[in-house]
Amino acid sequence: MPAALKYKTIGIFSRPRPTALAEVVPQLLAWLRDRGVTPLYDSETACVVEPCERCAQERAEIARQADMILVLGGDGTILAATREAAPRGIPILPINLGGLGFLTSFTLDELYPALDDALAGREAVNERVLLCVERVHNGQRMAVQRVLNEAVVHKGSLARMIELELHIDGAFVCRYRSDGLIVATPTGSTAYSLSAAGPIVHPAVEAILITPICPHTLSDRPVVVPDSSSIELRFSEHTSEVVLTLDGQIGVQLEKGDRVAITRAAQRLKLIHPANKTYFEILRNKLKWGEA
Amino acid sequence: MPAALKYKTIGIFSRPRPTALAEVVPQLLAWLRDRGVTPLYDSETACVVEPCERCAQERAEIARQADMILVLGGDGTILAATREAAPRGIPILPINLGGLGFLTSFTLDELYPALDDALAGREAVNERVLLCVERVHNGQRMAVQRVLNEAVVHKGSLARMIELELHIDGAFVCRYRSDGLIVATPTGSTAYSLSAAGPIVHPAVEAILITPICPHTLSDRPVVVPDSSSIELRFSEHTSEVVLTLDGQIGVQLEKGDRVAITRAAQRLKLIHPANKTYFEILRNKLKWGEA
Amino acid sequence: MPAALKYKTIGIFSRPRPTALAEVVPQLLAWLRDRGVTPLYDSETACVVEPCERCAQERAEIARQADMILVLGGDGTILAATREAAPRGIPILPINLGGLGFLTSFTLDELYPALDDALAGREAVNERVLLCVERVHNGQRMAVQRVLNEAVVHKGSLARMIELELHIDGAFVCRYRSDGLIVATPTGSTAYSLSAAGPIVHPAVEAILITPICPHTLSDRPVVVPDSSSIELRFSEHTSEVVLTLDGQIGVQLEKGDRVAITRAAQRLKLIHPANKTYFEILRNKLKWGEA
Amino acid sequence: MPAALKYKTIGIFSRPRPTALAEVVPQLLAWLRDRGVTPLYDSETACVVEPCERCAQERAEIARQADMILVLGGDGTILAATREAAPRGIPILPINLGGLGFLTSFTLDELYPALDDALAGREAVNERVLLCVERVHNGQRMAVQRVLNEAVVHKGSLARMIELELHIDGAFVCRYRSDGLIVATPTGSTAYSLSAAGPIVHPAVEAILITPICPHTLSDRPVVVPDSSSIELRFSEHTSEVVLTLDGQIGVQLEKGDRVAITRAAQRLKLIHPANKTYFEILRNKLKWGEA
Repeated sequence: MPAALKYKTIGIFSRPRPTALAEVVPQLLAWLRDRGVTPLYDSETACVVEPCERCAQERAEIARQADMILVLGGDGTILAATREAAPRGIPILPINLGGLGFLTSFTLDELYPALDDALAGREAVNERVLLCVERVHNGQRMAVQRVLNEAVVHKGSLARMIELELHIDGAFVCRYRSDGLIVATPTGSTAYSLSAAGPIVHPAVEAILITPICPHTLSDRPVVVPDSSSIELRFSEHTSEVVLTLDGQIGVQLEKGDRVAITRAAQRLKLIHPANKTYFEILRNKLKWGEA
Repeated sequence: MPAALKYKTIGIFSRPRPTALAEVVPQLLAWLRDRGVTPLYDSETACVVEPCERCAQERAEIARQADMILVLGGDGTILAATREAAPRGIPILPINLGGLGFLTSFTLDELYPALDDALAGREAVNERVLLCVERVHNGQRMAVQRVLNEAVVHKGSLARMIELELHIDGAFVCRYRSDGLIVATPTGSTAYSLSAAGPIVHPAVEAILITPICPHTLSDRPVVVPDSSSIELRFSEHTSEVVLTLDGQIGVQLEKGDRVAITRAAQRLKLIHPANKTYFEILRNKLKWGEA
Repeated sequence: MPAALKYKTIGIFSRPRPTALAEVVPQLLAWLRDRGVTPLYDSETACVVEPCERCAQERAEIARQADMILVLGGDGTILAATREAAPRGIPILPINLGGLGFLTSFTLDELYPALDDALAGREAVNERVLLCVERVHNGQRMAVQRVLNEAVVHKGSLARMIELELHIDGAFVCRYRSDGLIVATPTGSTAYSLSAAGPIVHPAVEAILITPICPHTLSDRPVVVPDSSSIELRFSEHTSEVVLTLDGQIGVQLEKGDRVAITRAAQRLKLIHPANKTYFEILRNKLKWGEA
Repeated sequence: MPAALKYKTIGIFSRPRPTALAEVVPQLLAWLRDRGVTPLYDSETACVVEPCERCAQERAEIARQADMILVLGGDGTILAATREAAPRGIPILPINLGGLGFLTSFTLDELYPALDDALAGREAVNERVLLCVERVHNGQRMAVQRVLNEAVVHKGSLARMIELELHIDGAFVCRYRSDGLIVATPTGSTAYSLSAAGPIVHPAVEAILITPICPHTLSDRPVVVPDSSSIELRFSEHTSEVVLTLDGQIGVQLEKGDRVAITRAAQRLKLIHPANKTYFEILRNKLKWGEA
């Protein structure tokens, strides 16, 4: 008698690279069904297989039914999958299909061994902190979103800069005159924050990273605070146009008087990763450390 | 018999801070007329004096008639005045009316001594290089503008980044994946470029400064090239939305396929400055060097 | 009947600024004795008072007898006091006597109110992580030292660079070719590490900060790891001359084949601080944030 | 009848990598003699050929007799060769024998084509500015040296920092509290200065680059000044131990009260380079631009 499967329904989220997907998906679906796993998949994945009404679903619906999300793509697909998977506490198994990815740590060669391990309950799971980002409008909390990498407030295209106050746990910290400010998780420390000269923060450090973008004040530096901090950004009256961007994917135009409140989210992302690779081994490859 | 006046018609450009202006302008106009100088002034300045049809003019018209432009304001006012004064080869005398200014090097206390010196031909004049910035659309050169500080190409508010190629004198230099790129004069090296970690370049260095904004490639660094260089920026097809900003004041949305061509302008800005202060003395005060 | 004193014997460590000390110390000793507290003091402090054999002692001896160390001086004096106070678990009350200090957070005006609070048990105490730094020579652990700010390995004066490997928890992380490497506590993040472009890390973040000094590899960036990490630095054979510096005060010339092992120390420093000032308020003043 | 040879005597400077040299040098000497060129070589080169008293000479003597110096090695060998070749106005032809090199722009494959071109007078020559570095002791100018990359003043191994004043053309510029200061040519901008976050300066820019090493003042930034500047470094009395390093090869311990004076040298280095490669093409390869 076969061992019980740890995951009985697996959702598949892909990004649209039809040629690569077409080589992978049909065989993958057969492999899953052979083992008694029910696959569900999003519309991007559906493009490369025979129509199947029951299997092709909205991503939100898939996340409701599945025990795990398999991502075929890059970091962007994981960021999107996180918004569905994290609130439901189901893990993500990320397979890198081309491109640079800090989060997509399995290669295509490792797809079936990784699935084997997961179905048998031998998978290694990394818990990644998420931030809960709220826009506060007229004193009302609205538009709560979770991010895996970062929330960014940024001047509009034609504005000269934004002027904002950082408050932590209700106390004023400092004033920034800059192009913007990045509030990132350790996971996000190797994404946009790194471009703005932020440090690399190991995901096991319980911290939030605050990195200014092009600060006009030369003494402004990235700041690392405990991830239990309650962060609030308030904008000066002179600041005309501010855009809030979540994980580089969702953009919100803020209105005059809006504030942004950021805290650690109650639920974490469960990210399956190769048991034999350390965080720094992956980083070393991505950053080409030691080459130039 | 009084000595001949070096400047017979002086245009006045102000920025709208009515309370400060009201204390300065009426007395200034009287002082100029007493000495036989004809003052002309823009609409901002006109707000604080008696109506005078002949004296209050458009800035472009003032630049056509005047021998010199007196700026009452900050660096922003000088940037705007430069666009009118430089093509006509007339000097700017900058008086700082509040705020930080790298270009407005005279304080209000020095207004009349500075004017005395200028009228007697004893003024010290600094020549500042300008850049000529052209948008190339369908192979046609359009929208030529002069800048004193910098031309910036920047991603739109919601874009992730821009991907561009830098070409110098017709040869490919490198590819940038970044939030944007700053092409600055030495004068502009203490403006926006400094926020993006660019070096300070003395205005007597015959160079153009190329500073990336949040480069995704960690090895990207500011580059300083001869100011005889012919610079061209070409955008990759993946780049959806690029904004070209000139001296932080004029914004142009680029279209797909547009290029940006930048060269040193034929004419320089003549900037009157205090004869007894060095460049570094002014810089030291502005940057508060040696304090923290 | 007066309330019991929380601290019955207080040691005083000073740095030699006789003129400032002479105004403070005699009155301070009288004040302590009036309240029934026994003062002990080091030789620097002894210079400005009447000879007293019983009171003037070696710093190590003072730390054995005292319940608390009062520091009159700057951050350097606290770094030295930490080496005596931390292993014995007694707190430090730091009074700033001139100069910039991130750790000496009480001003001279606050001396007596701070002592009053401490004697009555109302003092606010901040626990600061220390690092335990060991030189490993021929496989033997030697010369264990505790640091409050940082351990630095640095090339000798005439060497071109050092080449070292960073290992964490037994696994290879990366190779640095640089002038040196700083391994700092959050407390030390505002000291030398800040000069080498490291981030500011709040002392409540349980992390160790690794900042390269003048890295030859452009992709090298400061890295923040959990403070439970076991850090080891190994030097390449090409590296001729390496100096290990502890809190900027103790220098050790390493020998060929030596390694440096760094972990969080078992005991923390108890640092008394003003209850009404946040960490960021002190930082803001020291860094003159928001001025330039 | 063969065309006249542009270079009749060619000196060869090598760095000691016997295995690589042994494959190159004997054939090279034969090739030169076949064409009527007299080869001279230093003791490193002599190790891999038959003894020849007339051909093997001191580097200084070779530079006196030769019309050109052929360098087989890396940037370090060129820096040493520059000190001999530049004062005599003879060009250097650099062949890269392993290792990263910004100056050694010919590969070993290009050795004979490059020599052919040079002998026929078709070589492309780049003129590189040198700095003249003088130690001023008791008001006396001593120890004049030329550098191709940079002069560095640096704290001694155990010192905390140095405090120095920068003067340009006799006027005070600013005060640095730092580990040291780099004064570099454009050629040196891709060497040590780059590690200290200095910009890349094209060799055709007539400038000197001043880059602080680990500045304690957060507002300190690299500064680019005209290469006609007369630079002087003065050290504060608190500074105990300063080392002056020239091109990373010559180290001088400064004494209390010493100053360092730096100006552009009268003679430039003539560096032969591949006619078909631009400066940025070489840079792109060395820095691996566009990879990470």
